[in-house]
Amino acid sequence: MKVIVGVDIGGTEIKVGKFNDGQLIEKKSIKTDTTDYGSRIINDIFRVVDELLGQDTLEGIGIGVPGPVVKGIVLGAQNLGWEEIDLTSKVKKHYPHAHVAIVNDANAATFGEVAYGSAKGYHHVVMITLGTGVGGGIVIHDQLLEGFSGSAGEVGHIRVQETNPRRCSCGLFGCLEQYASATGVVKTAYELRKGKNTRLNKANLTCKEVFDFAKEGDEVSIQVVESMTDYLASGCATIADVVNPEVIILGGGVSKAGAYLCEKVANKFKKLCFYSVRNTKFMLATLGNDAGIYGAMHAASKQ
Amino acid sequence: MKVIVGVDIGGTEIKVGKFNDGQLIEKKSIKTDTTDYGSRIINDIFRVVDELLGQDTLEGIGIGVPGPVVKGIVLGAQNLGWEEIDLTSKVKKHYPHAHVAIVNDANAATFGEVAYGSAKGYHHVVMITLGTGVGGGIVIHDQLLEGFSGSAGEVGHIRVQETNPRRCSCGLFGCLEQYASATGVVKTAYELRKGKNTRLNKANLTCKEVFDFAKEGDEVSIQVVESMTDYLASGCATIADVVNPEVIILGGGVSKAGAYLCEKVANKFKKLCFYSVRNTKFMLATLGNDAGIYGAMHAASKQ
Repeated sequence: MKVIVGVDIGGTEIKVGKFNDGQLIEKKSIKTDTTDYGSRIINDIFRVVDELLGQDTLEGIGIGVPGPVVKGIVLGAQNLGWEEIDLTSKVKKHYPHAHVAIVNDANAATFGEVAYGSAKGYHHVVMITLGTGVGGGIVIHDQLLEGFSGSAGEVGHIRVQETNPRRCSCGLFGCLEQYASATGVVKTAYELRKGKNTRLNKANLTCKEVFDFAKEGDEVSIQVVESMTDYLASGCATIADVVNPEVIILGGGVSKAGAYLCEKVANKFKKLCFYSVRNTKFMLATLGNDAGIYGAMHAASKQ
Repeated sequence: MKVIVGVDIGGTEIKVGKFNDGQLIEKKSIKTDTTDYGSRIINDIFRVVDELLGQDTLEGIGIGVPGPVVKGIVLGAQNLGWEEIDLTSKVKKHYPHAHVAIVNDANAATFGEVAYGSAKGYHHVVMITLGTGVGGGIVIHDQLLEGFSGSAGEVGHIRVQETNPRRCSCGLFGCLEQYASATGVVKTAYELRKGKNTRLNKANLTCKEVFDFAKEGDEVSIQVVESMTDYLASGCATIADVVNPEVIILGGGVSKAGAYLCEKVANKFKKLCFYSVRNTKFMLATLGNDAGIYGAMHAASKQ
């Protein structure tokens, strides 16, 4: 069987999926070995891919990497311990007959949703991933937008708060990530719950709980969600004013809050964006944690 | 002689340039006749082009239009009185043997600077036009980014002020245009000069005067310029975070303030953008009012 493999390298886990004709046949994951500047990661991937392959023929292999990538060159990946590396050449050397695609992980996830997920059939798409941080990817005319230095779609660091901004881990102030990530939502909850009678007054509060309590009518939780969606809608308006996508997809763990989140953002967006981009659609991602391997596979299939 | 014609339709004037091998041979301009919903504009253009052509062979014609354009269809142009119109077909009918390109005017200007102006040799470029309003264009991999509904690059309506925002003519609040356009600069000057001993205390103050006085050391004028460049740098940081261009070009009348403006924005930008886009270059546009005809011509030459 002819197969394409999609790989998603995360800071803690590497996911590998074997696909035939766009169908996920089998997947496997291993821990990311970041010791010795991540020097074992590539061979670990080759080993898992070889195991998954068995008697199959590898037509292509796509890899999503947590760092900026320009034309197949990884410029660095802090979480892995990597500096600049020509990953395309390394992979081509190991699999000389396969098409090879190396892309940024957020871009891979976006590509996955565009080719096989919620944005199938759309050609101009922005995906915003709301997880521990906030990331993003942009697809224009069915092509990933890498940007000059592989950093297009770093939408988590758009400034959305200026009066009393939180300091971001990137060194800037008021970044979207500080308000719309899971961590940001919990921070807002801690701030707003003070001295209030609310279900938010518990230890180890999670972002999921904030949304659950809000859906169940807890007033302070609703305030937290309103604040988060105000910032997210403002960020989305800015993004749409710049690149004018057809669809903005909300993905990542926080997006499990579902239609409750998506509709609030879509409604607030309309009041904050330029009138000519007002009919931008909002959708929830559907591939979950598999978006990266789907997108990496799709990138390889286009080589 | 084989020529390509570039046309730039403005709200008050239509510019037409005849080019041979990228060189501007001759140009002409006429008033824009916006009566009867701009119904005479197209024939006026044909007449001027025919006059300019003489015995030359028209290889291509490009037209920049002040409104959103998607794949050669003008979706509307308020200043001209136009609703949706398939301008490509109309022009092809009149010049059946010529390559025809219809683009948005801000995009045309950007394309001009990329192909023949300050950004020659760069492939990922954002141009911000600082005039009466603030407009923009984006070129990625040498291609204009139109966006899903022809509105990519509407950077004048990014929100950069939230605490005490000015109302914009678009209906939104705190748009970049309200602070970084010539009109915006004068508004800020009127606000800051109140009760101050400053050269800004004169009637019919212009944006050029504000910059001139600032360069000559007038304290309040310097404050106005600092405020304007804070907002502009903030907008540029957002744009760079989203599309990660190699170069941001500052054009339009306000950009005549020159290196004084450009350097201030570039320095402030570095403190506001995400670290991975910090080496984005800043340049001043060089084609002035001819950028549009150069860009329209260039768009036609690529058809």
